[in-house]
Amino acid sequence: MIPARISLVTIGAKNVPQLRKFYQDLGWTETEISSDYYAVFKTSGVLLSIFPMDDLLKDAGLEVSEISVPYKGVTFSINVDEIAEVDLIINQVKDRGGKIIKEPSDASWGGRNGHFMDPENNLWEVAWNPTSIFNEYGAMVSF
Amino acid sequence: MIPARISLVTIGAKNVPQLRKFYQDLGWTETEISSDYYAVFKTSGVLLSIFPMDDLLKDAGLEVSEISVPYKGVTFSINVDEIAEVDLIINQVKDRGGKIIKEPSDASWGGRNGHFMDPENNLWEVAWNPTSIFNEYGAMVSF
Repeated sequence: MIPARISLVTIGAKNVPQLRKFYQDLGWTETEISSDYYAVFKTSGVLLSIFPMDDLLKDAGLEVSEISVPYKGVTFSINVDEIAEVDLIINQVKDRGGKIIKEPSDASWGGRNGHFMDPENNLWEVAWNPTSIFNEYGAMVSF
Repeated sequence: MIPARISLVTIGAKNVPQLRKFYQDLGWTETEISSDYYAVFKTSGVLLSIFPMDDLLKDAGLEVSEISVPYKGVTFSINVDEIAEVDLIINQVKDRGGKIIKEPSDASWGGRNGHFMDPENNLWEVAWNPTSIFNEYGAMVSF
């Protein structure tokens, strides 16, 4: 059986301290695993790791020169309980110097969302969906 | 407060049916949210969505032509409870036609891991870490 798990999402970083600071400035908490070398943040259902890109490539045995695309093809979503939180959070990201990609707006699927990118173009969506169900850890189990 | 959450990981797909089939063939279960248009798989701590790339770009207001890089800079990890599962799972992925990027080997950090890619070059790591701690949903809370 192949367990259906995403235990860890690792973002390969060109500049770990800069990217770490971005997530620290969001008010997110690191785990005890974090070191000077890399950062591991607690989230509701998956650990988020910021890891040196070169070592991440090496760990997978990949040889790639440079990754420089405006969008990497993967979106991370922060789903919230109340519609008002979408605008509040996008504003807080803005206050922390985050790059707002799309201001909050009502979405075609009946909710509301806005988008930002971290300093290395990882795309985040802040979303409210009227039908989201969360477990006691705040992990979304359905929507 | 900006909630520390990854509620959903969305992979932008060029070919949704092909990518959906890959994850179905792993034995993973879709949620009731899934439709002909896109697939949403249940995992232990975060929902995994396979969504048409063009619409994902549109939803974020991004204008990007084509994304074609050998590695996107993000790795998803499946962390397991027993060291033997790493080799078993990589073999199962191989049997299902998955692209093995790195055969299982002992890792410098004291565990064991192997890597595969789905048909659109999204990188997955199967890892055993002797110090991993999981919650009752199978979500990794520390390692």
